[in-house]
Amino acid sequence: MFKLVLSDVKLFKNSFEAISSIVDEVVCVIDSEGFRVTAMDRSHIVFCGLDLKPTVFDEFECTVPDKITIDTDEFMKILKRAKGNDTLTLSSDEGNVIIKFTGDVDREFKIRLIDIEYESPQPPALNPPVSVEVPSDLVNECLKDMALFSEKVYFMVDENYFKAITDGEFGDAEAAYLHGENILEVVKSCYSVPKLQEMFKASKFSDIVEIALGNDMPLTLKFKLVSDDGEMSFLLAPRLEQDE
Amino acid sequence: MFKLVLSDVKLFKNSFEAISSIVDEVVCVIDSEGFRVTAMDRSHIVFCGLDLKPTVFDEFECTVPDKITIDTDEFMKILKRAKGNDTLTLSSDEGNVIIKFTGDVDREFKIRLIDIEYESPQPPALNPPVSVEVPSDLVNECLKDMALFSEKVYFMVDENYFKAITDGEFGDAEAAYLHGENILEVVKSCYSVPKLQEMFKASKFSDIVEIALGNDMPLTLKFKLVSDDGEMSFLLAPRLEQDE
Amino acid sequence: MFKLVLSDVKLFKNSFEAISSIVDEVVCVIDSEGFRVTAMDRSHIVFCGLDLKPTVFDEFECTVPDKITIDTDEFMKILKRAKGNDTLTLSSDEGNVIIKFTGDVDREFKIRLIDIEYESPQPPALNPPVSVEVPSDLVNECLKDMALFSEKVYFMVDENYFKAITDGEFGDAEAAYLHGENILEVVKSCYSVPKLQEMFKASKFSDIVEIALGNDMPLTLKFKLVSDDGEMSFLLAPRLEQDE
Repeated sequence: MFKLVLSDVKLFKNSFEAISSIVDEVVCVIDSEGFRVTAMDRSHIVFCGLDLKPTVFDEFECTVPDKITIDTDEFMKILKRAKGNDTLTLSSDEGNVIIKFTGDVDREFKIRLIDIEYESPQPPALNPPVSVEVPSDLVNECLKDMALFSEKVYFMVDENYFKAITDGEFGDAEAAYLHGENILEVVKSCYSVPKLQEMFKASKFSDIVEIALGNDMPLTLKFKLVSDDGEMSFLLAPRLEQDE
Repeated sequence: MFKLVLSDVKLFKNSFEAISSIVDEVVCVIDSEGFRVTAMDRSHIVFCGLDLKPTVFDEFECTVPDKITIDTDEFMKILKRAKGNDTLTLSSDEGNVIIKFTGDVDREFKIRLIDIEYESPQPPALNPPVSVEVPSDLVNECLKDMALFSEKVYFMVDENYFKAITDGEFGDAEAAYLHGENILEVVKSCYSVPKLQEMFKASKFSDIVEIALGNDMPLTLKFKLVSDDGEMSFLLAPRLEQDE
Repeated sequence: MFKLVLSDVKLFKNSFEAISSIVDEVVCVIDSEGFRVTAMDRSHIVFCGLDLKPTVFDEFECTVPDKITIDTDEFMKILKRAKGNDTLTLSSDEGNVIIKFTGDVDREFKIRLIDIEYESPQPPALNPPVSVEVPSDLVNECLKDMALFSEKVYFMVDENYFKAITDGEFGDAEAAYLHGENILEVVKSCYSVPKLQEMFKASKFSDIVEIALGNDMPLTLKFKLVSDDGEMSFLLAPRLEQDE
């Protein structure tokens, strides 16, 4: 049993927009440490985690730890109906998750909980050698550039730049962002553009994304709330294509 | 023969947007009392009436009462081409209705009148026991909420609230609006969500809608101009579904 | 070899939006007189010319005259990715045209040049007896009006008005614009509405369009930059339909 009140509905909207494009059903864990989601897509290429501390919420009541499994599309449909100034209240009864929007009108939605209890997947431990911070919107836009030419993109970090590079049959594209960090090595990996675009649906979650990678290793993305009590993270397996 | 001049084109746009989604062809009556349309949809579930007094218009000339039958889709296509600051002039010749927009450019459109003269349907007399006023935009939004789950919605009025309630296979929704009126009974009827959405295309006609209903009886909607010289009204037959 | 720098990316965007809807591949000539494109559509109904003097550009380097053939769709795809405050740098290497956007991020795109060198078509010499200036946006809107009823439109100029007239099976439309010029004759020609709409994709190029025509002769459209160092022009063959 739990009751969460959140005046910033957009936070849930933005997170679940990314989550619902990655997985169909998801386990949400609510306990004294907050509201958490971990999910792995079917092909085991993308791992996604949402971690919201109790302080993110205007009200956070949870006496007994709870686990609910929801259909992410159905949940997203409801979240999309929120108005900008609505307050969200999340709770559950026997068989439903209850989503309440309080504003000019009081609106209450119930959607059926899913009976299956999945294991919450755990992210693999990674130690990417290089990490840079980039405005999330810039990366988002770059991905649209890259998508014009190819389904794969090389992410590369060198002493000065974070680069996204693609070469397609009809053209090439390259974007370079001066990262301003003290980096001494050059790393490069190849990733799927459509998968990255799904993950960057969370780009509204925070203005800055922390990008960590190595040579031919998984990509780690971290979107952190300014207040530091909420985080959305992703792992993405590299594509096997070799640089020619 | 008539000539109507209206500087608020939106008034016609908003009314005919609803009318054209309910009926394909409609009889407009123009006489010394104003411009009137009454229409019943094919399945006889929705009745719709538009009543604009001469004072709504900047100019209203009508020496001999006239009746014209128009294709609502064709008429709507033209109205959509109006700019915000255009003045509308409506008249007719032998076989056409003439729609003129005066602004930076003068534009004149003619669409063929339809030769068949339909009877103007009369609304059935109803005496709904309960009536409340609700911001029309709120109801409009509620209908979108309800449409997520079901094709039918229960409208209910009790001492304090006007409520819209739906329960679908995958979820439920309920919206409650504190009506602030002196109502002593509880009434409830079930209506078609898509039909209501067609009717609420007229919601821009006025900010407030008067909703009158009873138990399992037709719904009456009235959108009134603030100036009180124009009104758009609807009747909607209840659905037979019983509350379980 | 050339290098063109342009801070007003929109200029290229607007021009190539029209060009790409008329031809698939186009020859661009760059020499000491500027950047020029001339193109004729496959059916030889539309001729289109773009002429940008060196002064339009922030930087214009071209030591040896150059000719490049590009795929207009591919080029347009890249131009669409420009942000409002990006600076465009255009150059070429052996086999590619290089499009660089400089802003918060540096982005560089290469698209393959086309190996075939087409002849640059020359516009036929015309001497239209009548010419008027009309706000390009007004004509653009008129064409949408006309498109409701028919695929052909009569452009007519008389002593007072520039008129667009169409009569379709279901209705007629007429738009009149008071041109305020000293014109003593009446001319009229019939043109294709869809072709005109393609050409008016360039309407954002300048606020005013110069329209020149005669009786049953080709239409000349000229969009000129305010600074007078750039121009986009079109010729459109008349339709053979006779006025009834």
